[in-house]
Amino acid sequence: MPRQPPPPEWVQKLQPSSPQGADLLAAERAGSGVNVDRLAELLHTREVLDKRAAIEKIVAAEPVFDKTELLSMGRVERMQRSLARGKKLKQLQKQHNWSFEDYKVANTIAGEPTTYGLHDSMWLVTLREQGTPEQHKLFLEPALANKYIGCYAQTELGHGSNVRGLETTATWDPTDKTFVLNSPYLTASKWWIGSLGKVANHAIVMAQLFVNGKNHGPHPFVLQIRDLKTHEPLPNIYVGDQGPKFGYNSMDNGFMLLNKVKIPHINMLARFNVVDPETSEYRRVGSPSLIYGTLTWVRSTIVLEAGAALARGVTVATRYCAVRRQFQDRDAEEAGLKTGETAVLNYKMVQQRLLPLLAATYALHFTGRGMMAMYNANQEAMNKNLAAGAKDARGAGPEELNPGAELLADLHATSCGLKALGSTIAVEGLEVTRRACGGHGFSSYSGIGPWYADYLPTATWEGDNYMLTQQVARYLLKTARQVIDGVAPKNETAEILQFYISRKDTGVANDVLNNDADIVRAFAWRTAFLTLEALKLRDKEKKSWNSLLVAFWRLSTAHSQYLVVRNFYDAVFKDPARLAGNVGDVTADVLQDLFRLFALNTIENHAAEFVTSGAITNNQLTLARVKGVSNLLDRIRPHAVKLVDAWSFSDFLLASSLGRYDGKVYQDLFERARNNPVNELIFDPYPDSDVLIKRTGAKL
Amino acid sequence: MPRQPPPPEWVQKLQPSSPQGADLLAAERAGSGVNVDRLAELLHTREVLDKRAAIEKIVAAEPVFDKTELLSMGRVERMQRSLARGKKLKQLQKQHNWSFEDYKVANTIAGEPTTYGLHDSMWLVTLREQGTPEQHKLFLEPALANKYIGCYAQTELGHGSNVRGLETTATWDPTDKTFVLNSPYLTASKWWIGSLGKVANHAIVMAQLFVNGKNHGPHPFVLQIRDLKTHEPLPNIYVGDQGPKFGYNSMDNGFMLLNKVKIPHINMLARFNVVDPETSEYRRVGSPSLIYGTLTWVRSTIVLEAGAALARGVTVATRYCAVRRQFQDRDAEEAGLKTGETAVLNYKMVQQRLLPLLAATYALHFTGRGMMAMYNANQEAMNKNLAAGAKDARGAGPEELNPGAELLADLHATSCGLKALGSTIAVEGLEVTRRACGGHGFSSYSGIGPWYADYLPTATWEGDNYMLTQQVARYLLKTARQVIDGVAPKNETAEILQFYISRKDTGVANDVLNNDADIVRAFAWRTAFLTLEALKLRDKEKKSWNSLLVAFWRLSTAHSQYLVVRNFYDAVFKDPARLAGNVGDVTADVLQDLFRLFALNTIENHAAEFVTSGAITNNQLTLARVKGVSNLLDRIRPHAVKLVDAWSFSDFLLASSLGRYDGKVYQDLFERARNNPVNELIFDPYPDSDVLIKRTGAKL
Repeated sequence: MPRQPPPPEWVQKLQPSSPQGADLLAAERAGSGVNVDRLAELLHTREVLDKRAAIEKIVAAEPVFDKTELLSMGRVERMQRSLARGKKLKQLQKQHNWSFEDYKVANTIAGEPTTYGLHDSMWLVTLREQGTPEQHKLFLEPALANKYIGCYAQTELGHGSNVRGLETTATWDPTDKTFVLNSPYLTASKWWIGSLGKVANHAIVMAQLFVNGKNHGPHPFVLQIRDLKTHEPLPNIYVGDQGPKFGYNSMDNGFMLLNKVKIPHINMLARFNVVDPETSEYRRVGSPSLIYGTLTWVRSTIVLEAGAALARGVTVATRYCAVRRQFQDRDAEEAGLKTGETAVLNYKMVQQRLLPLLAATYALHFTGRGMMAMYNANQEAMNKNLAAGAKDARGAGPEELNPGAELLADLHATSCGLKALGSTIAVEGLEVTRRACGGHGFSSYSGIGPWYADYLPTATWEGDNYMLTQQVARYLLKTARQVIDGVAPKNETAEILQFYISRKDTGVANDVLNNDADIVRAFAWRTAFLTLEALKLRDKEKKSWNSLLVAFWRLSTAHSQYLVVRNFYDAVFKDPARLAGNVGDVTADVLQDLFRLFALNTIENHAAEFVTSGAITNNQLTLARVKGVSNLLDRIRPHAVKLVDAWSFSDFLLASSLGRYDGKVYQDLFERARNNPVNELIFDPYPDSDVLIKRTGAKL
Repeated sequence: MPRQPPPPEWVQKLQPSSPQGADLLAAERAGSGVNVDRLAELLHTREVLDKRAAIEKIVAAEPVFDKTELLSMGRVERMQRSLARGKKLKQLQKQHNWSFEDYKVANTIAGEPTTYGLHDSMWLVTLREQGTPEQHKLFLEPALANKYIGCYAQTELGHGSNVRGLETTATWDPTDKTFVLNSPYLTASKWWIGSLGKVANHAIVMAQLFVNGKNHGPHPFVLQIRDLKTHEPLPNIYVGDQGPKFGYNSMDNGFMLLNKVKIPHINMLARFNVVDPETSEYRRVGSPSLIYGTLTWVRSTIVLEAGAALARGVTVATRYCAVRRQFQDRDAEEAGLKTGETAVLNYKMVQQRLLPLLAATYALHFTGRGMMAMYNANQEAMNKNLAAGAKDARGAGPEELNPGAELLADLHATSCGLKALGSTIAVEGLEVTRRACGGHGFSSYSGIGPWYADYLPTATWEGDNYMLTQQVARYLLKTARQVIDGVAPKNETAEILQFYISRKDTGVANDVLNNDADIVRAFAWRTAFLTLEALKLRDKEKKSWNSLLVAFWRLSTAHSQYLVVRNFYDAVFKDPARLAGNVGDVTADVLQDLFRLFALNTIENHAAEFVTSGAITNNQLTLARVKGVSNLLDRIRPHAVKLVDAWSFSDFLLASSLGRYDGKVYQDLFERARNNPVNELIFDPYPDSDVLIKRTGAKL
């Protein structure tokens, strides 16, 4: 929606200097034999791609989803626009009879979190999973009908990661059979609660349950917080939006203090725990193991999405670096040749930054798939056990749960480690892609910055990426102890530890440059080495847990990298004939090169660990660096544009001048720039005058 | 400036749960013998500290400099506020008779770039340095009087780093003795030009000078772009603001296209080059070597400021991590002890992330000082030579200039390498400090995010940090060739190469854990090793320049790290008695520990290079990791808060709830949150209703 009239004719006639971006991208695509359609289907399936396209057509037609306008808005205006977008998405869902999956796709295409984000997820999920049938009728039904707009209020001003440290209290009052919700301290204020700030009229409040003076730990309570007609906060509830953030500014993350607010007995979600209204007795009545399943599912989703999250930035940067030309080749210039300027993507330094990230997008995607398969297998096993009546969960930690306990422990550790590694790779990689776009990467029209800022909290929420590594280390140490004691379960983790122990003295003799399976073994070897080192420090040398946190972080990272490499290996080497049948020989070969690049580049970045653990030799490391990675960059370079094309992001989704599919980078940047609202003002520039605006509504 | 009335009494009575932040920071300060005042004087001098305090008093009293309000504003409103702030700063300068230095201090305290940023710097500097006396009278005088508000228009839509690739042309027309400025392509549009978008009425335009069909390369021209009264663009000039950015949104970076705009002969800045108006002959008339000096000075300033830039984030995170408590110690908990929650700063994983960055702030500060001393020595030498009449500069590159050529080449390479390394450490470190603040780090009230976004372009401007590394590598290779040929100048770079060559076969036998001088030697050894490796690849194996870019980047990083470590070493070990006399024994010891931590942590992060180069042994590496760094974290931890206090950032400057000097973190976060302007709205939350705002002006 242009705000400015067309520019004068002399401007309209100007073209970018040649070569044109469109021709450059066309040449890139002509120069690679990668089968983009087949590869896209391998990544997404044809069905999903078609569905997405259909939904995008509907979303993109609505003016409220214009993305350029958002970038210049202040917080108040953005919040209003976010509400308008949220409403429109829900209206479209109704109108087009979208499934919840379709609706989520539409949200992704619309491209920013809306004020209903937490209503749609944690509010509904928690009511559904932790409510009784009676509570479903009372709360879930009006919630599904969008009468009760809700949120999930767990985190507090003073406590995030440590849920057991929450300060909000829910005290059972047997005299009138109510719970009294209260914030005894300022630090008990709920904080960071999405959808609470402005929109929610209900909340699940996590509060320490006190019955007869005894604290039973955090439990979920349903609380109405705003009037259903006036939308004003109810008495003794001090609630509001918590202000501007680094990103995610379309969400009304909020705070809330409670002053002895009474709620009826029915408002404590009671599927797993109840307070008997007659006897005031506190009882467990069900197994909460499915809830652990949910947390694992959330983390698995983050793993699956990390590849796509990073791929947005890689797509933009790869296309732009194929269009952008800067400097003549130095050797050619010194030889007196006139070759014209070089595409930035041809510079080795740019390839070294971008192509391993391109490889990482595929690595994370296949790992996410593997993770989801593991999750589904676990759910199946658990449901079988639950059906068989196992209900003896203690709730102290997933590995102590009976149903499918070993699989669950492995799944829990895997999801923690991969969530931390996957989102760290994506977050840090996005900033690398932004910077690889040079100066224009700093413009919001690059599309990377706004996306980075919105994606960034993923590194902190659902388990801080550093905190989570302790879970992984704990699991690895435990498995190592079991292996040493000969009581280990049969699983991947135990196997790599057993292999290492059996070969420790003879060494592993990997040939990482010539044998792809040996690459995976080198990663497994390193994990096993670091696990046993850490075990020695903890069990033999009795080092404090705190003193080992850095070692645990390294260990978790190493193990998670092994899992990614192994999943990628399985995807491209386990059934190469089938892969080639699906995507064609050329594409299959390139995917295998991507595997090698991801793995060798990771080895290089953690070279000291690989060498000191004996996973590879010093000599192999030098070769991997000089020959391996460098050759792979050369081999993958011609396919880079098609490899990002296969991710199939639409221009509407990317909202990026630099990442346009057609390469018309400069025209688009110029068009957006001239239409930005600041250009409707004429300023008075003289410091002696206090006049700021000389004229509004200016036309360029 | 609260927008909301005081909260209800029950909210006002709430305190954070104990222990209180104020008590915790007081205890931190009581527990360390570091002399904050003396250390602050060592960093800044008493005079500067007093001056700063006086200026801050004046700035902070002006409502227009309120910082919290800015964070919620949209781009249009922010631009207006930025102009208002810029004007106020200039008015205060006049009113208080501030020197330019004082005025710059006031800008720093005000805390964001204003629309006069480029007027004050590149516009004035270029006129002064490249104008003739006649041009000074014509342009510089009205510029200094703030009548001509200017900018420096070099970068274009299609060309940033490669200045020689600029497309804007200035064609000499002998018939009417004018230059015709023209944008032949859309990509010739000026872009990223600070102060051009809205405020400047003049610009220095860098354009390819064509005389008689011959291109003489980019030259500077003065162009009036807007009417001095109406402030509307002049005919055939299409100019505007380029839109929202990741940060720096208070600056009107702009675009500009020119349609055969004629300017008089006098408008080409003619101190170094002229076109004879009578004969149309193009001539060099002066040595531009001082201009190279300016570029070096700009980069030196970035090095000097990188330490302080990072220190802002480190200050916030260190104080907040000393206040924030999360989880009980795991061993204590398992032992059944009730010790209460642990300060986050006590966790080894947090120390490992923060304390090396704390060390880096000091390392970069002392390096910046060293760099400035080197710059001043060079200026002195050059001025002497210039005075002696040396005027034979070719302008092709600083090392080809006569006056002080060798020193200048060294200075040029040093400033390139250190600019790249310093700003990279600061940029990446700021994000680490933000994340170390957990969830609250994501709030704009942390103060880190907004500062990070504004500081971020430093990694790209004044030479992209990756591009610059080629300059360093080129210099190192050249010096290595000279050393091998026995014709090297006497300087530090030649010395470390000579030492390496003389000891190559016997090895270096460094004792990095016990001898501080050996730490420096290990860094020098690694630089020399990598230089000679790269030289072999380039000269013997005839590898292409492009294929070596990654090796050059690593080499430049290694060399620059050596320079930082050497500068830090000099600052704390060269005259330890004097240092102890200045700051006291305890503080001097801690500074020496900071040196060790910075150096050993850097070794660990680049372990493979140190080991494969033979700078240290595998065994030393393991010890450095396990014993060295870990022990240093323990030793430095008690002094962390006082070490950031010494940086002497005021609360006004930091604009951070989390980094408050008094530790009243939670009160401040709450107060800012409730007063954010979103809370003046009541939303209608129902998706079926298209109403967004139910009521404005709401009070909590």
